[in-house]
Amino acid sequence: MKLAELGEFGLIGQIARKVSPDKTVRLGIGDDAAATEPTPGCLTLTTSDMLIEGVHFDLDWCTPASLGRKSLSVNLSDIAAMGGVPRWFLLSLAIPPTLPVEFLDAFIQGMLGLATEHNVTLIGGDTCSSRNGLAISVTLLGEQLPERVVSRSGARPGDLVFVTGTLGDSALGLEMLKKGERSGPAVEKHLDPTPRLREGMALAEAGLPIAMIDISDGLAADLGHILEMSGVGARLLLDEIPLSPFYRERVADYASDPFRLALGGGEDYELLFTAPPSAREEVFAICRSCGTPASVIGTITESAGLTIESATFPNYRLSEKGYNHFRND
Amino acid sequence: MKLAELGEFGLIGQIARKVSPDKTVRLGIGDDAAATEPTPGCLTLTTSDMLIEGVHFDLDWCTPASLGRKSLSVNLSDIAAMGGVPRWFLLSLAIPPTLPVEFLDAFIQGMLGLATEHNVTLIGGDTCSSRNGLAISVTLLGEQLPERVVSRSGARPGDLVFVTGTLGDSALGLEMLKKGERSGPAVEKHLDPTPRLREGMALAEAGLPIAMIDISDGLAADLGHILEMSGVGARLLLDEIPLSPFYRERVADYASDPFRLALGGGEDYELLFTAPPSAREEVFAICRSCGTPASVIGTITESAGLTIESATFPNYRLSEKGYNHFRND
Repeated sequence: MKLAELGEFGLIGQIARKVSPDKTVRLGIGDDAAATEPTPGCLTLTTSDMLIEGVHFDLDWCTPASLGRKSLSVNLSDIAAMGGVPRWFLLSLAIPPTLPVEFLDAFIQGMLGLATEHNVTLIGGDTCSSRNGLAISVTLLGEQLPERVVSRSGARPGDLVFVTGTLGDSALGLEMLKKGERSGPAVEKHLDPTPRLREGMALAEAGLPIAMIDISDGLAADLGHILEMSGVGARLLLDEIPLSPFYRERVADYASDPFRLALGGGEDYELLFTAPPSAREEVFAICRSCGTPASVIGTITESAGLTIESATFPNYRLSEKGYNHFRND
Repeated sequence: MKLAELGEFGLIGQIARKVSPDKTVRLGIGDDAAATEPTPGCLTLTTSDMLIEGVHFDLDWCTPASLGRKSLSVNLSDIAAMGGVPRWFLLSLAIPPTLPVEFLDAFIQGMLGLATEHNVTLIGGDTCSSRNGLAISVTLLGEQLPERVVSRSGARPGDLVFVTGTLGDSALGLEMLKKGERSGPAVEKHLDPTPRLREGMALAEAGLPIAMIDISDGLAADLGHILEMSGVGARLLLDEIPLSPFYRERVADYASDPFRLALGGGEDYELLFTAPPSAREEVFAICRSCGTPASVIGTITESAGLTIESATFPNYRLSEKGYNHFRND
């Protein structure tokens, strides 16, 4: 079926019928604005991400369902990085008229499936036509008590630097996709990353993270954001950076510097945070119980800047610092 | 200056420095998510609109400042239509690398100027590169007490149908722009519409509107949304539709049906609402005191459908029903 036959309001109606009821939503899809009931005492956390065809995704590589999931996941990951509880989201789509309705159905199905897993409800958005490729914008609202919200600032000298999961798999997956590979754990992590919501919430509830961010631009760049916002530096232990067995096995085929994708690749959507050394074992236990082990990969220092230490590569130098839109290189 | 020299984080920093402080914003631009303090007892109202180059705007027609204002205005208008108070917003931009930084500066300046007028604060968003034209997505959060929120549903037989301001000017302006005209009140209304926030809030505080919507798709289509959501019909009085002197004077040059642009054109961003006949004078007084007179243009009927009555054009038939993305014609 073509979108022109279904029409804008047909599409919106079709999406609205698939959304599960949520008693905190007084007005959902179909009014001028959604109306939701905030939880008394909580701050509202709001984040928004845009995904542009040809920049963030390639329709030859992803399935519509995985694209739908990822468009929500990248926002869920931002709420996770605040220690927040995700609640409601809006989806805006600029759709090329040639895009089949079946694609949109599978996209929405993937997105709403993930929304159900995390108890978040689609409450509105916008649909319009696009002349040049699909553009997706998701805005997610979350909540958390003020004392539990974790920002990027506040990291203190002596804090340990923690990261969940393994790094570089997503960037390796992207390199593999570019070379024609279409499956495997790295490709899957790139196309369908898992936001670390349980970990973020559990850590925030335990009051452990001092500063936290999710890794979307790459470890070095995102650690840089924490350092800048906190007015501190860090010593990064290269040999402690968690790498998956798959990454160790395959990275040499795609990068001459074995750490380049883990440090600069981005889109890991793992949590990067600092906590005092006394919290080390509790952080490990919480992350393990949530399903994603954490590692200590460095220490916050008083002197600014990021220094990298390694017994294996004593003179290691970072070859790139992470993704930056608009850059020429 | 080129965007590539400024970089993504340079751009974000430049925008962040221009935002006025707001004590309800605990964390603004620059963290994974914004954190804001909701007003106790209020519902959160959320709306999102996408503006795509070549679909919603033409860079040859608008100034960067007016585009910045309009991108926020269309969202402010949605909050006005709920009777809400606008509070915080997020801006996402997909930017072609060739766009000069000066354009973005003027765009942001225009947007933030309007934000200050309406006491709303930019709290976050996203920036990325685009390969095909500028894409803008704004999400606006507003608030209102539950009993004051006005939805599209609930219109009752016997209610009068009101509209603020005059209709068709924006659509006339668009036709004029297409033919090469670049100024005049209609062109201005198209490029820089005024959201009826004061009117929406004052009406909602007085508890007068039963159902309300802003006219973005055109009077006939948007009245259709109220009728559908309320399960009622309406009798529209063609001769009572408020037309500006400029519209009356110029419409014949652009449309053979003098009511086509007023009924089907869209982007008026006027408020369309129903209220009981007993509220008529109070509605008029409130809207006059807010600066935009209201008119009665019809009555809600029990029988479904929209009938159009006119002494001047007794057999008038609507030639189009409003804008619908994805439609072939």
